[in-house]
Amino acid sequence: MASMATLFSKTSFPSHSLSKNFETHFAPSVRINVPSLGAKKRAYPRLRVSAGLIEPDGGKLVELIAEESQRDIKKREAFSLPRIKISRIDLEWVHVLSEGWASPLHGFMRESEFLQTLHFNSLRLEDGSLVNMSVPIVLAIDDSQKHQMGESRKVALFDSRDNPVAILNDIEIYKHPKEERIARTWGTTAPGLPYVENAITHAGNWLIGGDLEVIEPIKYHDGLDRFRMSPAELREEFTRRNADAVFAFQLRNPVHNGHALLMTDTRRRLLEMGFKNPVLLLHPLGGYTKADDVPLDWRMKQHEKVLEDGVLDPETTVVSIFPSPMHYAGPTEVQWHAKARINAGANFYIVGRDPAGMGHPVEKRDLYDADHGKKVLSMAPGLERLNILPFKVAAYDKTQGKMAFFDPSRAQDFLFISGTKMRTLARNKENPPDGFMCPGGWKVLVEYYDSLIPSDSGKVPEAVPA
Amino acid sequence: MASMATLFSKTSFPSHSLSKNFETHFAPSVRINVPSLGAKKRAYPRLRVSAGLIEPDGGKLVELIAEESQRDIKKREAFSLPRIKISRIDLEWVHVLSEGWASPLHGFMRESEFLQTLHFNSLRLEDGSLVNMSVPIVLAIDDSQKHQMGESRKVALFDSRDNPVAILNDIEIYKHPKEERIARTWGTTAPGLPYVENAITHAGNWLIGGDLEVIEPIKYHDGLDRFRMSPAELREEFTRRNADAVFAFQLRNPVHNGHALLMTDTRRRLLEMGFKNPVLLLHPLGGYTKADDVPLDWRMKQHEKVLEDGVLDPETTVVSIFPSPMHYAGPTEVQWHAKARINAGANFYIVGRDPAGMGHPVEKRDLYDADHGKKVLSMAPGLERLNILPFKVAAYDKTQGKMAFFDPSRAQDFLFISGTKMRTLARNKENPPDGFMCPGGWKVLVEYYDSLIPSDSGKVPEAVPA
Repeated sequence: MASMATLFSKTSFPSHSLSKNFETHFAPSVRINVPSLGAKKRAYPRLRVSAGLIEPDGGKLVELIAEESQRDIKKREAFSLPRIKISRIDLEWVHVLSEGWASPLHGFMRESEFLQTLHFNSLRLEDGSLVNMSVPIVLAIDDSQKHQMGESRKVALFDSRDNPVAILNDIEIYKHPKEERIARTWGTTAPGLPYVENAITHAGNWLIGGDLEVIEPIKYHDGLDRFRMSPAELREEFTRRNADAVFAFQLRNPVHNGHALLMTDTRRRLLEMGFKNPVLLLHPLGGYTKADDVPLDWRMKQHEKVLEDGVLDPETTVVSIFPSPMHYAGPTEVQWHAKARINAGANFYIVGRDPAGMGHPVEKRDLYDADHGKKVLSMAPGLERLNILPFKVAAYDKTQGKMAFFDPSRAQDFLFISGTKMRTLARNKENPPDGFMCPGGWKVLVEYYDSLIPSDSGKVPEAVPA
Repeated sequence: MASMATLFSKTSFPSHSLSKNFETHFAPSVRINVPSLGAKKRAYPRLRVSAGLIEPDGGKLVELIAEESQRDIKKREAFSLPRIKISRIDLEWVHVLSEGWASPLHGFMRESEFLQTLHFNSLRLEDGSLVNMSVPIVLAIDDSQKHQMGESRKVALFDSRDNPVAILNDIEIYKHPKEERIARTWGTTAPGLPYVENAITHAGNWLIGGDLEVIEPIKYHDGLDRFRMSPAELREEFTRRNADAVFAFQLRNPVHNGHALLMTDTRRRLLEMGFKNPVLLLHPLGGYTKADDVPLDWRMKQHEKVLEDGVLDPETTVVSIFPSPMHYAGPTEVQWHAKARINAGANFYIVGRDPAGMGHPVEKRDLYDADHGKKVLSMAPGLERLNILPFKVAAYDKTQGKMAFFDPSRAQDFLFISGTKMRTLARNKENPPDGFMCPGGWKVLVEYYDSLIPSDSGKVPEAVPA
């Protein structure tokens, strides 16, 4: 995957270079804004990272990782405090919080933040303004953990291998209203929601909020850590590339040429609008996903091939991993996906059909209306500054032998290849039509399904459509 | 109930009187604002109704009732249009919409309003600002009604006796995602939610939104119509009384002396803050309530006695009926209750323990955390202008022989008389401790329970605590 790492440094600028600075104006009613081209250039030797990029929520990127000189002290302190053992998903949230993806949050939510998230999908700041926050970022504890804590105002979080990860300060413990949390986040309480079953149903009946101090950067040692750029690192990269627009593409599935068409077409549109150097943030989700999704390491291999095959331009593409776990909460979650990318410097967000959706766990239908995600996103409080770019539908154009934007006036020329269809082909080692996906990327998919050891029943987990 | 009607005219001012006009400033972080006492008086001969009172949401009170001269024309038009027969609850919502309780809504919600309500409990106006809107005000239709509508851009709403009620213009039909609506509104999908069973479960799979034109004012001919003052009429009344603060008290239960204490104490606090003439809006909910609540007519009789007995001061109290149906949706619904009262001119809202709450329909617990209502209310987008006054807990002080604010330092002196306890006493024709409720009001309650014909099982419906 070395070729991907090189993407981050292909276009290098000396660190003292002049940064372009746009006076950007965002009007809620006009989603697309054009930079004022006459804006004068100014030098920001010390503010280089954020110059010209969209401001993080709350005005300042939150970073919660202890200074290197303090780490040993914090580690010793952690050993002296009451302990909470955290799960893998909890650790992923610590990671998310530590790097400021959820800015301006400073730690796991206290009750007032939790309630605002559930009811309003937004948080009110001290100045009265709202930032978006649609998904509860909370830490559950059970009765005995609560009891062990006694009167302590601080607790230490330890990972599954008993390593100290963080200290939670000035804690607040409050009830974990599981049913209400699930209903308001997913719009259903049907059994079988993957995140719910993994992280809520068996979790404790209390939530603990507080200010987080993370002892050292979270690493997973899975060979992919170098792709996990923090929002600060991404901002630095975009600035180094002199990006005057950053458009983010969230994904948790293999990239096919329909996606690629969409991303290159978005860049074309941004250039037409007057931007000089729009950069794509290709941003696969790297945290918890359900069992039948293609795992992160295989997806990263597939993305690598797509870039090697030249389907996307490495000069104007940054590939990085978004560390958040996946809720599969549709219109509620897509707001989180968009908001986090603002904090990483993106001011354009591409949204497709049924973002963060899945099939209803009990009924034979999609859980969410396929159009609600983009509608909700375009109306969400706190996301007014973000330009929402709705997907056009791409399909396989039989007359051209490639993926193209669907033209309803000649519908018979198009072939829709669903995610299910794609996976069935890969599993059977058959090839899709030429031009659907670059051959290298397709080969990775075939290898992945080949690698699956059939379970006792002989059945391979069935992936759901993208 | 004649004595109540007189409340509205006891303090009469000539209609050309000078209205007090305060320059009020509301800061989100400081909930209580003090009027600038030096504000000069100005005459508003034509703007008398709203001078000095809090502005309605969206700046203008919406009124959707046809001018008298147009009513025959509208009626004839209604007969020429495709018809939707509406239920009693639908009619109550037409009433609510017609008088502007839900300003700036102009009719049943279209999809964008419905989605914003579900996800954000607020609506964004054209100028980018937010108004609160927490409860979906929607009209459901079924497949055959949708089919009958054809390509019509208008439909007529007819009541259960086939009288034309309103015309819905420029309609939009969209899917009725019942499960999601219920989950996001109530925070549960458990069976047994009264409003859900009455108005959603068996409703159609489509929602129809549009601009409402109501043919004539909605009347119920139940002897209580004269108490159903519209927001415009209430504003006129508050202005006539020269109110410089209006504090609203929502209720759907009999008034006991604890409530009365709270209301008189609120007035005392407002006077201390510098207001000269705070007026109480005692505002019982008059729309749909569940079977085990005390019915509206009995509650009105009870409220009448409370006023006759001098427990509340008629000079500074306006009793009126709030026409909304009840959702029992706790923290979500209390926002609606508060927002509607802004439109009626109230700038202070009293909120108690577990507002709009009820027992969980399946589990043995309250559906909502008793403190969430006031917390959510105090943080709700669009309610920044409203001053939230949280309840103090009142209980029966045995040493004084009356209701008093609970003093935890002498807890043993207090007796908590729950709603259940109160109703059990009334049903058994026993008396509560002296000073719990005025004798005339208590007598009404005893009569009400006496009037109930025991059902087959010999059991009288059990009311849940207030």
